[in-house]
Amino acid sequence: MLSTRYASCIQACSACAIACETCAAACLEEQDLQMMRTCIQLDRDCADMCRLAEVLMLRDSALVDEFCRLCAVACQACAEECIKHGHDHCQQCAQACQHCADECQALAA
Amino acid sequence: MLSTRYASCIQACSACAIACETCAAACLEEQDLQMMRTCIQLDRDCADMCRLAEVLMLRDSALVDEFCRLCAVACQACAEECIKHGHDHCQQCAQACQHCADECQALAA
Amino acid sequence: MLSTRYASCIQACSACAIACETCAAACLEEQDLQMMRTCIQLDRDCADMCRLAEVLMLRDSALVDEFCRLCAVACQACAEECIKHGHDHCQQCAQACQHCADECQALAA
Amino acid sequence: MLSTRYASCIQACSACAIACETCAAACLEEQDLQMMRTCIQLDRDCADMCRLAEVLMLRDSALVDEFCRLCAVACQACAEECIKHGHDHCQQCAQACQHCADECQALAA
Repeated sequence: MLSTRYASCIQACSACAIACETCAAACLEEQDLQMMRTCIQLDRDCADMCRLAEVLMLRDSALVDEFCRLCAVACQACAEECIKHGHDHCQQCAQACQHCADECQALAA
Repeated sequence: MLSTRYASCIQACSACAIACETCAAACLEEQDLQMMRTCIQLDRDCADMCRLAEVLMLRDSALVDEFCRLCAVACQACAEECIKHGHDHCQQCAQACQHCADECQALAA
Repeated sequence: MLSTRYASCIQACSACAIACETCAAACLEEQDLQMMRTCIQLDRDCADMCRLAEVLMLRDSALVDEFCRLCAVACQACAEECIKHGHDHCQQCAQACQHCADECQALAA
Repeated sequence: MLSTRYASCIQACSACAIACETCAAACLEEQDLQMMRTCIQLDRDCADMCRLAEVLMLRDSALVDEFCRLCAVACQACAEECIKHGHDHCQQCAQACQHCADECQALAA
């Protein structure tokens, strides 16, 4: 069954996927849409990476460590973009991404 | 931004997807694998439906109501199969599925 | 194994998911980004719906008919939005969506 | 728009995801289900990896090279398991996985 080793990382990935989906959807409604291009692109990749990371951990897949190493890269990139924007959804997303990057990095180490 | 109308249903879908992935992975390790075929099949569909339901709600998609109506069908079917099996992961999955079926049904109503 | 009943619909869903992902990514790079909001939103939903439709057909899931009925709605909405835009990726996407809507509708009928 | 650099790898990933989903579903119906555990597990991971690889290429994501390197690992593992089983769906899946492993490896190199 579910390894307790993964518990906090699964939670971080789940929260990060939700934050990224929310941020991407909200960015698409913003006035300054031109400035949000990169944010939307990184949100989408990060959301999809986190969702698959979560699933692979739930399955205790042999790919978990390598996948989480790469997921940390996606989260870090998204955190660094989101932090630049003042919108609440971007700031919240930056925080979720940074936390998830740390969790994935720790797991992969 | 995220409609509060969806909050409890998103949480139920997220928990149900996790329970179904966990149950499917654990079923695949069980001794009595022959008996778990249908459970694994329904777990997989239910996990994927709940994950997309969650995403569509986060995006406030026009498809939400109709999708949640169908997601409730997937959850109900999975709950009814899982409840038959004594394994802890099946019982926990049955509970998560039943709760999610109720949330999706309420949302779609 | 794979029902031949699904063959053309699986192919249409696969092609439509690719066209929608391509269109969403290309829309995000367009100058007239403000005009592409709805197109990007519908592309995303349609891509995700088609991908799950494809998977459910490959599994011969009990949900196939109902899911394809809803997938046709997503495809139709995306086709009607994409056709309005002159970009090549939008026109190609409109065509893929319309074809997929027809296939899904025929399957669900 | 879509980089032609990715064209053959996208096609290989799409075909591999379909072969893996088909194989997993068919394995779950086999008499000798006990022997198919690992095959089903690897099929699931490989299908999900290939589907995300395809999406990341369609988006021309910065993660493509690293992701394809890892996707090749998933495909290789699945190919090596599937080749052991005589079922048609396993043999076809082994072939699709091996081809996709080669394409992903070449892209990541």
